[in-house]
Amino acid sequence: MLNWDTMFASRSSLMRASEIRELLKLLDQPDIISFAGGIPDPALFPAEEFQRAYADIFSGAAVNSALQYSVSEGYKPLREWLIGQMGALGIPCGLDNVFIVSGSQQGLDYLGKLFLSPNDTALVTWPTYLGALQAFNAYEPAYDQLTPSGNRTPESYRVAAAAAGGKVKFAYLSADFSNPTGETVDLAGRKRVLALAEELDIAVIEDAAYQSLRYDGEPILPILALEIAEKGHINDTRTIYCGSFSKTLAPGLRVGFIVANAPVIRKLVLMKQAADLHSSTINQMAILDVAVRGFDTQVVKIKAVYSHRRDCMLAALEKYMPKGTSWTKPEGGMFIWITLPEGMDGAKLLAKSLETAKVAFVPGKAFFADGSGANTFRVSFSCANEQMIEDGISRLGRLITDEIGG
Amino acid sequence: MLNWDTMFASRSSLMRASEIRELLKLLDQPDIISFAGGIPDPALFPAEEFQRAYADIFSGAAVNSALQYSVSEGYKPLREWLIGQMGALGIPCGLDNVFIVSGSQQGLDYLGKLFLSPNDTALVTWPTYLGALQAFNAYEPAYDQLTPSGNRTPESYRVAAAAAGGKVKFAYLSADFSNPTGETVDLAGRKRVLALAEELDIAVIEDAAYQSLRYDGEPILPILALEIAEKGHINDTRTIYCGSFSKTLAPGLRVGFIVANAPVIRKLVLMKQAADLHSSTINQMAILDVAVRGFDTQVVKIKAVYSHRRDCMLAALEKYMPKGTSWTKPEGGMFIWITLPEGMDGAKLLAKSLETAKVAFVPGKAFFADGSGANTFRVSFSCANEQMIEDGISRLGRLITDEIGG
Repeated sequence: MLNWDTMFASRSSLMRASEIRELLKLLDQPDIISFAGGIPDPALFPAEEFQRAYADIFSGAAVNSALQYSVSEGYKPLREWLIGQMGALGIPCGLDNVFIVSGSQQGLDYLGKLFLSPNDTALVTWPTYLGALQAFNAYEPAYDQLTPSGNRTPESYRVAAAAAGGKVKFAYLSADFSNPTGETVDLAGRKRVLALAEELDIAVIEDAAYQSLRYDGEPILPILALEIAEKGHINDTRTIYCGSFSKTLAPGLRVGFIVANAPVIRKLVLMKQAADLHSSTINQMAILDVAVRGFDTQVVKIKAVYSHRRDCMLAALEKYMPKGTSWTKPEGGMFIWITLPEGMDGAKLLAKSLETAKVAFVPGKAFFADGSGANTFRVSFSCANEQMIEDGISRLGRLITDEIGG
Repeated sequence: MLNWDTMFASRSSLMRASEIRELLKLLDQPDIISFAGGIPDPALFPAEEFQRAYADIFSGAAVNSALQYSVSEGYKPLREWLIGQMGALGIPCGLDNVFIVSGSQQGLDYLGKLFLSPNDTALVTWPTYLGALQAFNAYEPAYDQLTPSGNRTPESYRVAAAAAGGKVKFAYLSADFSNPTGETVDLAGRKRVLALAEELDIAVIEDAAYQSLRYDGEPILPILALEIAEKGHINDTRTIYCGSFSKTLAPGLRVGFIVANAPVIRKLVLMKQAADLHSSTINQMAILDVAVRGFDTQVVKIKAVYSHRRDCMLAALEKYMPKGTSWTKPEGGMFIWITLPEGMDGAKLLAKSLETAKVAFVPGKAFFADGSGANTFRVSFSCANEQMIEDGISRLGRLITDEIGG
């Protein structure tokens, strides 16, 4: 065999198989109750609506356009529909501000590519979305801890970034029901992030993948909306909003979007032209068709199911988790974040759990850019019914109780 | 407005709007005959077959899988079908050797990302596919000239790459009916490229986007097939084969593929997981359905149309082009490459042509990594009928005759 490692670019050494992915291969075993995935429940997909959407495309006049190459910006009618959605969220914008990507994961990759030279610093929360770390890693950054509730000085970030060999380029966060914690950044926290970004003259990447999935509590304005309110126009803002249809409609079509100031969108369009030309034309049309006919109805439907599952899981945690553990109480999304007593290890717990309790979850360490967080783990309630939640959390509770006792 | 340029990564300065793209915006004018695009004729799309494919997906058992997240490697039954196709091309391979991408353009981007650190050298032909240069540019390489018919020493490449600040990482070429010239690299040329790659210990990226579209002449084995024949097994080869469904079935679904040794495929899968998770599940299923039912029939159909158009265009060039011009005689693909007398400028000719002759084409300079080739241009016959070809080439011939005379 050839020695490929000597031929690959230096960035490739950061592309490693995720431990989680390896562990999750075990999940095909039918006797395991899995809270590991963070995927939408396929039973909730608007399959009939998609069926009609594709059928309509083929019986309509645009069938050739659906199958042909199209522009890198994305399908214009879909971008126009998004302008309306954004307006309702307090984000007035125009066509120049809306860009379609192949899932918001691609948006994160493109933003890493746009901003990060090797050794530049990305600010992320501890923990943060694992997929964001994976996307950014390809551009060989350093990481520093973003603390929306904290008070680190801008100067301390500048000094750390210079020591790492570059500049701070952006702050990345998910303000609503984030993956993995399910927590929300409050209004004051959002304003602190904006003020920090202003001081550091950096971008803010607002990952809004779960924003539509609020089950209770009052909605808080997106960071981009707050900044537009302050500055008057989206083209004067530094916040880049990444949105998704994967949690609301369906992930299999790979359609997401970015809303931001026109100069950043222009660069992203050029980048996409060079990287994959454009996102699937026919899928953009299908997403629009389903969204126009009933995006809000679909969101109401899935919120009813997921919020009930969240309630069940919180109740089960209350009932079965031993003293010494704690967990988040999310107002939306798909995740609850559990903290074990200091010194316990989520990965070891998972290995044991797969053997004895037969419950799967995701150990927390991989979500920390600094490799901390060993005593944490993530559970998702999105694909689990009441009975699975009751059985799974009770088994997990017993295992943890034994571990703490033993 | 913020000064984004100071925030962007250094690579972003290489992401520029293509002049061609700007010029081609003029093509909406109805009185212009365009030979500029390199896109398939939408009248040839197997639209009914795609209609049935999507309908079957929604009436079948796999509808939830079609709409759900899936694995980064790609849809397994599609990869299995590709194994059969590759076998017939002299490329025996297994599942570990086949990887689905969102169009082969994405394959080029990923390969640039996998191999190129800044200042590494990519070998490309003069001219080469513009989209390859755009994809690779994001990784800040140097370029050197690959000459399949030439005799530069490996040492001369090594010295030039070191002077540019890196190493030679791969040779990229399209061996069959390349974009932009339509030319084919003969068997001896393919073997010379392999021998050079062996000497330099680099990868060969074989862009096979047009390979299925041979209209006459004998097929020549793909470079990867030649290398497998020599080395015995695909996992011992250095050639990475990039394939496309865009020219045969339809580009709007964004489904392409890479076939290569397992270590390279494994890295690409990790890269894709971080970059966009996976290509559209439903579209991979639809492509497979249409391919299984009649890939060969579809290829026969489009070859009949395109080869006739090529014949018409070659005849028209013979009839109308003045002395001093020359052009390629492609055995397949979508393009003919025209060389003007030394000192003439394809871009200036286009500007004049859009005003007077009302014929569009693509000036050749952008296809040259060194910015040479000003006296060349590309015409495509894929979307032009007989009458358009006769009218367009006669008008263009008159314009060029006038220019040479004047």
